Amino acid sequence: MLLYQDPRAPNPRRVRIFLAEKSVAYDTIEVLIATDQHLSVDYRRKHPLSLLPILELADGRIIRESMAICRYIEEVQPEPNLFGVDAWERSQIEQWNRHAELEVFIPIMQIFRNTSAYWQGRIKQAPEFATIMSEILHSRLDWLDRELATRTYMAGDRFTVADITAICAIDFGKASKIRLQPEKHPNLIAWHARCAERPSMKA
Amino acid sequence: MLLYQDPRAPNPRRVRIFLAEKSVAYDTIEVLIATDQHLSVDYRRKHPLSLLPILELADGRIIRESMAICRYIEEVQPEPNLFGVDAWERSQIEQWNRHAELEVFIPIMQIFRNTSAYWQGRIKQAPEFATIMSEILHSRLDWLDRELATRTYMAGDRFTVADITAICAIDFGKASKIRLQPEKHPNLIAWHARCAERPSMKA
Repeated sequence: MLLYQDPRAPNPRRVRIFLAEKSVAYDTIEVLIATDQHLSVDYRRKHPLSLLPILELADGRIIRESMAICRYIEEVQPEPNLFGVDAWERSQIEQWNRHAELEVFIPIMQIFRNTSAYWQGRIKQAPEFATIMSEILHSRLDWLDRELATRTYMAGDRFTVADITAICAIDFGKASKIRLQPEKHPNLIAWHARCAERPSMKA
Repeated sequence: MLLYQDPRAPNPRRVRIFLAEKSVAYDTIEVLIATDQHLSVDYRRKHPLSLLPILELADGRIIRESMAICRYIEEVQPEPNLFGVDAWERSQIEQWNRHAELEVFIPIMQIFRNTSAYWQGRIKQAPEFATIMSEILHSRLDWLDRELATRTYMAGDRFTVADITAICAIDFGKASKIRLQPEKHPNLIAWHARCAERPSMKA
């Protein structure tokens, strides 16, 4: 298996951590967004929207979208389970993975896209939207902190894909000076420390 | 089962169509966003973020997030299959469902949220961001039209959850005057007509 990825981008990191948790071996090809390698003719042939990552299987078939890749890996390498073991747990992990993505990951990505020097002059930016997203994000972090007062991980008492989504989002937030605050987010900070000590986080 | 929903909102419609395809019986409670019923103390007790829909099971357990609800239904009522029958097909349906959501559904929602009179004065709006989203959306619709030149449905040769996401997005686009154009989107228009004739679309 071959992962096309950028070592600095948060979506490829979700997949790298997932693969590390599964102890799945794979090769990588770097596609650096900073130097517009994702816009090359060769890469667009694999992904017409120039998004990262993609997973290429040994027979040449391609899977796009981080969560489609992770779900495929979950099926070919079921242990350790990261998406749930029965219908109810799977629904709860999906719920929390989507909360992590829609309420934390996407707002943080939008703040970065609409304010960073990294994207300035490369895409159209709307800083006013980033300000709105920032307010929403902070209310979401406060809410997540309250949620984590009564459990150790996003979706319950064990590490799952929902934690991978949330930690990749929060770590990427540093690029936009978004940080967990000790006085407001003690439970999120404890959760982050719990996740951060996993070997997969270095992937 | 009890679905808390708003008949005009696109996310509840995704779930209603899914349940209709599955011929699953359920009751509904209307939570009208137009009159701020989603912000009531009672509803916030069920969903602290005031989002719709939620599914309440007979024993009182709650599932939030449309796709978590649909996945749960897929497990308790497997036929007709809407998420894929093996690891590869499931990865492709997930890929296209995410493309439909991230590249079409969310841009259309953001255009509506940031420009509509419906939300004016109720949430902060950034029309400049809607203009950026609108450009991206139109390039995505052109791309999807090219994709649909070689197959009948979003993820292949049969109707799946990816089609539900895409049609709910495109139909909701009308509220922001977003319409498929005969000269640019002949394949999307044929796909839309193919989906629209299904009885589930009236759900």
